[in-house]
Amino acid sequence: MNQPVAAFAARSLLSRYTSCTVLAIGAHPDDLELGVGGTLARLVRADARVVMAIVSLPGDHERRLAEARAAAAILGCELRILIGAGRRIDDFKPYQLVGMFDELVTDLAPVAVLTHSATEFHRDHTAVYQATVSAQRLRFFDFFSYHPTMCRPVQMPFQPRAYIDVTETIDTKIKAINAHESQFAGRGLDTEVYRDFARLHGRMIGVKYAEGLDVGRMLLA
Amino acid sequence: MNQPVAAFAARSLLSRYTSCTVLAIGAHPDDLELGVGGTLARLVRADARVVMAIVSLPGDHERRLAEARAAAAILGCELRILIGAGRRIDDFKPYQLVGMFDELVTDLAPVAVLTHSATEFHRDHTAVYQATVSAQRLRFFDFFSYHPTMCRPVQMPFQPRAYIDVTETIDTKIKAINAHESQFAGRGLDTEVYRDFARLHGRMIGVKYAEGLDVGRMLLA
Amino acid sequence: MNQPVAAFAARSLLSRYTSCTVLAIGAHPDDLELGVGGTLARLVRADARVVMAIVSLPGDHERRLAEARAAAAILGCELRILIGAGRRIDDFKPYQLVGMFDELVTDLAPVAVLTHSATEFHRDHTAVYQATVSAQRLRFFDFFSYHPTMCRPVQMPFQPRAYIDVTETIDTKIKAINAHESQFAGRGLDTEVYRDFARLHGRMIGVKYAEGLDVGRMLLA
Amino acid sequence: MNQPVAAFAARSLLSRYTSCTVLAIGAHPDDLELGVGGTLARLVRADARVVMAIVSLPGDHERRLAEARAAAAILGCELRILIGAGRRIDDFKPYQLVGMFDELVTDLAPVAVLTHSATEFHRDHTAVYQATVSAQRLRFFDFFSYHPTMCRPVQMPFQPRAYIDVTETIDTKIKAINAHESQFAGRGLDTEVYRDFARLHGRMIGVKYAEGLDVGRMLLA
Amino acid sequence: MNQPVAAFAARSLLSRYTSCTVLAIGAHPDDLELGVGGTLARLVRADARVVMAIVSLPGDHERRLAEARAAAAILGCELRILIGAGRRIDDFKPYQLVGMFDELVTDLAPVAVLTHSATEFHRDHTAVYQATVSAQRLRFFDFFSYHPTMCRPVQMPFQPRAYIDVTETIDTKIKAINAHESQFAGRGLDTEVYRDFARLHGRMIGVKYAEGLDVGRMLLA
Amino acid sequence: MNQPVAAFAARSLLSRYTSCTVLAIGAHPDDLELGVGGTLARLVRADARVVMAIVSLPGDHERRLAEARAAAAILGCELRILIGAGRRIDDFKPYQLVGMFDELVTDLAPVAVLTHSATEFHRDHTAVYQATVSAQRLRFFDFFSYHPTMCRPVQMPFQPRAYIDVTETIDTKIKAINAHESQFAGRGLDTEVYRDFARLHGRMIGVKYAEGLDVGRMLLA
Repeated sequence: MNQPVAAFAARSLLSRYTSCTVLAIGAHPDDLELGVGGTLARLVRADARVVMAIVSLPGDHERRLAEARAAAAILGCELRILIGAGRRIDDFKPYQLVGMFDELVTDLAPVAVLTHSATEFHRDHTAVYQATVSAQRLRFFDFFSYHPTMCRPVQMPFQPRAYIDVTETIDTKIKAINAHESQFAGRGLDTEVYRDFARLHGRMIGVKYAEGLDVGRMLLA
Repeated sequence: MNQPVAAFAARSLLSRYTSCTVLAIGAHPDDLELGVGGTLARLVRADARVVMAIVSLPGDHERRLAEARAAAAILGCELRILIGAGRRIDDFKPYQLVGMFDELVTDLAPVAVLTHSATEFHRDHTAVYQATVSAQRLRFFDFFSYHPTMCRPVQMPFQPRAYIDVTETIDTKIKAINAHESQFAGRGLDTEVYRDFARLHGRMIGVKYAEGLDVGRMLLA
Repeated sequence: MNQPVAAFAARSLLSRYTSCTVLAIGAHPDDLELGVGGTLARLVRADARVVMAIVSLPGDHERRLAEARAAAAILGCELRILIGAGRRIDDFKPYQLVGMFDELVTDLAPVAVLTHSATEFHRDHTAVYQATVSAQRLRFFDFFSYHPTMCRPVQMPFQPRAYIDVTETIDTKIKAINAHESQFAGRGLDTEVYRDFARLHGRMIGVKYAEGLDVGRMLLA
Repeated sequence: MNQPVAAFAARSLLSRYTSCTVLAIGAHPDDLELGVGGTLARLVRADARVVMAIVSLPGDHERRLAEARAAAAILGCELRILIGAGRRIDDFKPYQLVGMFDELVTDLAPVAVLTHSATEFHRDHTAVYQATVSAQRLRFFDFFSYHPTMCRPVQMPFQPRAYIDVTETIDTKIKAINAHESQFAGRGLDTEVYRDFARLHGRMIGVKYAEGLDVGRMLLA
Repeated sequence: MNQPVAAFAARSLLSRYTSCTVLAIGAHPDDLELGVGGTLARLVRADARVVMAIVSLPGDHERRLAEARAAAAILGCELRILIGAGRRIDDFKPYQLVGMFDELVTDLAPVAVLTHSATEFHRDHTAVYQATVSAQRLRFFDFFSYHPTMCRPVQMPFQPRAYIDVTETIDTKIKAINAHESQFAGRGLDTEVYRDFARLHGRMIGVKYAEGLDVGRMLLA
Repeated sequence: MNQPVAAFAARSLLSRYTSCTVLAIGAHPDDLELGVGGTLARLVRADARVVMAIVSLPGDHERRLAEARAAAAILGCELRILIGAGRRIDDFKPYQLVGMFDELVTDLAPVAVLTHSATEFHRDHTAVYQATVSAQRLRFFDFFSYHPTMCRPVQMPFQPRAYIDVTETIDTKIKAINAHESQFAGRGLDTEVYRDFARLHGRMIGVKYAEGLDVGRMLLA
């Protein structure tokens, strides 16, 4: 099944985002690296401006911030932290979260937004998903959701519809994940499971490593 | 919400299919025109080779064939009829239908396939959908489903995920639908409902007319 | 498909609600007009007492209130505002919202309740839906949900199961929507999209304009 | 929760069907009695013409036919058998089944059709459901599905949306079921489980016994 | 269908939990008795340690606590109340609820957790379900959900996947429910409906009374 | 997350099936090995009698039969072929397939049946699933579905609910898959993807390799 994918390579849809802004939203540091790190690195290489918006740093603020910055630098993305130290997503009402995302979308005018999926088990993640859904009313952008993210694997339903070949950025992704030392190495947690996921997704399209996205809405033409 | 859509125009994803083959599959004549006629006309204008594969001509063979040819010519597509006169989709076993589609996919090597959706109420349509799902195992192609099609409107669930601006091809679409005189004018059935559908889909993305597709799988990059 | 619908006309199910109370619940002003305005006007003409309960006026309180009153007058309904100025639905806990609805249901003893649907993208709307679901435990009433409502169209899944012919009240509905000048004309937003929706729903049952409702529960006999 | 249901009694929606034809479709003898026997008896008492269409008599033709006739007489309904002795539903192609139902609908011009549900485990039952869905395109009628039917209970998902109080016809229903002696008493199978089901459904609306229907589409007004 | 169930009896899966801790979580007093009382009594008879964790006592604190204690004693379970008098589940943020459950799971090291289901209509119940889902990340345990619970019956979707024969504990269950006098006898509410439910579930597996559970995850071997 | 799984080991649920018959049904040779080979090998080691029922050998009859025999021997299972040479599942009507499964179930009196899942893309696989669902009415048995099986990976939705630790039988499983040389090595297809799947499933429960099953129904106690 491999050859057709190669045929697409010269016309990668990512080129569409060149010189445009892509907004990637994650509830906490490491979510974006886990869910869509390989894609973000590819977007950066395609000369998109990629903004990683981290909604909150739940605790151990300085260390998590330093890790988030290191990881964003590895991926080549800008970093924004939406909620200051000492406050949690749960401390904000849904309309306040929507307000933050509305502001981001108005400010950045993104052509694509990548966010959590509706089927996450972490409440903060689904809250972020729902607020992103609401932000759709402000302007049109391609809207994608990434695989449920977690430090310790729990089975969650997720059906990818769009694939990104991350063969050339998988190592960058794993490196960015490992930058969150407090979450993985510091707890004795293995990060090779994310390479396993990417390998399985890659098998679905005939490449070595891939990430899968669900498609909320997109403009084909 | 209109301006961002204009911003995408210079980088339409359809350009990806230029010089490539797109396979559009419909159970009977008029299904493709109803579901995706505006998109097919846009693909043709983007210099894709578009093959309309009609699985069967249920009855009144000569007239339906002439209408199908006229409509394909209006859209600028090649036409293939898979099952000869006097036989119906129900006369073929599922594995035989899969066999026909496998052959088409092997022969045409399409980069994208557009087919019926899983939520149609017409059994022939869901049979076509299922056989297309099976053909996915042979090679990778972008896989899209179009809105349930019918001559007389019945409410069916369908959630579009990808939109195509068909403002410049809506008239061509309606003309191609009207080429099926035996199904519409000949029965006193109005075709303006399809313009209504396209107008509503257009409102979802801020253009005058649009078609919506569900995304089975696609390669973003 | 038109003739059978005419045959039903002499036995419209709405006559069931004559002299009874129907409770229609909307999160904010304009929601009921958008989702079910034509139905409310028909219920009023069938001599039902229709109470429009607006949960909150999010901001610009005086103006929104005046608009809500004007629209209710156009439709011929009573108006109740549940939450006072300066407070939002998000400021109330779910059990408080349930408490308000319990009180309404106990006070009005409605034979039917119309509310938002489960598939809305606005969190306030789904919160209203859920609180209405809870209120079902207090007494039996027919429970219907209306189409997702929004000022700027975003695709949301919704499957109508019950239709109301609003051909004779569509103009009243549009007039009631337009009474919310701050939301539509004042923002340069077109309201003809709601006539488009009603025309498409009408086509599903063979009348000129219709509204569609999802059925939570109802007593047929 | 009982009193409101009584309030509806004077305005039972069943009166809508007085002097009209209601078509009830069951794959085999006993399906209609099990799924909707109490409702059919109530419709007959409300002076509707009720036609029970049994698609096939799978075997033991004479006996099953006699039982079906006896049961229809108990309920007060007309009986039609669609497929002659010695042939099964599986012996007909989907378009042939649709053709039979189209003919029935054209011939009887029903204002309501009651059929199997989409979530049955018996393939014949879902085939009957799907063919009824297709028949919707011919004319508008209220479309209801009844609870999955089976001689030996297996858990199947089903969500009733419309209830019929069958307190006064439950005994008639059980009697009609018992008329199918070959299926129940003849196999030592108890039929009291169907009274249990009706009691539980009744509890949902505050009456002694009820049947629940799913609503495909209906005209409220 | 009865005999195979008897064949299983000697190897009841409950024996797996002998000498282990099973954690049963209910939003309020009576939820566990209603949803899974017969199962808890059987687990106790199989020498499991069963901890009933009641998240909150909504009001009438002393009386509800006494009833909860009486019911737990009837079932033979330990009782824990998570939230002190005067506070409700809605007064806690989702992360605080997760924190409570994390602590319970860490403290008790349960091999199985029984909790509310995702399809409840009571917001507190779904909040409890979601917090239990989150607690899965801490350690592996079998995760089951019980039937939606309510004092006044409202139809809710629920699909049991695992059955427990409660023929020998149904009377204990009803007795434990009746210990909540303030909720049932004190309001004139009948509790025989719960015997009806158990009888219907029993019919699905060929025993007199059963309870049904949905399976979130479990280790078979 | 590993330790609790070890705690279960002494009380593996598989011991329940010791000296009993487990029936595993696959549409074609290799399906059972792919979907549930590690579990079958574990059941055999737990002294269950495991019957692999292969519905049909689609073509190349002698070779496929030899491969199926070799694989069954590797797993330690009995092998039954239901349909003789030269006929396909599609050549049988649904009631005939149900008849075959009814006979198997009556003959073998299995305490558990493992079959395809409802979400397969291969029509033969879903036909086998549906016929197994029907066979549930004859007697009670635990009913499990295994992961969609395919020689060339295509993304399909599947949510495991029950896990089997196959760390000690994964090599046996891969060996049994490789016995189907005509399907894998003979076509240049890699079988390591199945080890990847097992590794990911293992991560969900904290063991090295696992298989996941969906639970249709089961008796817990």
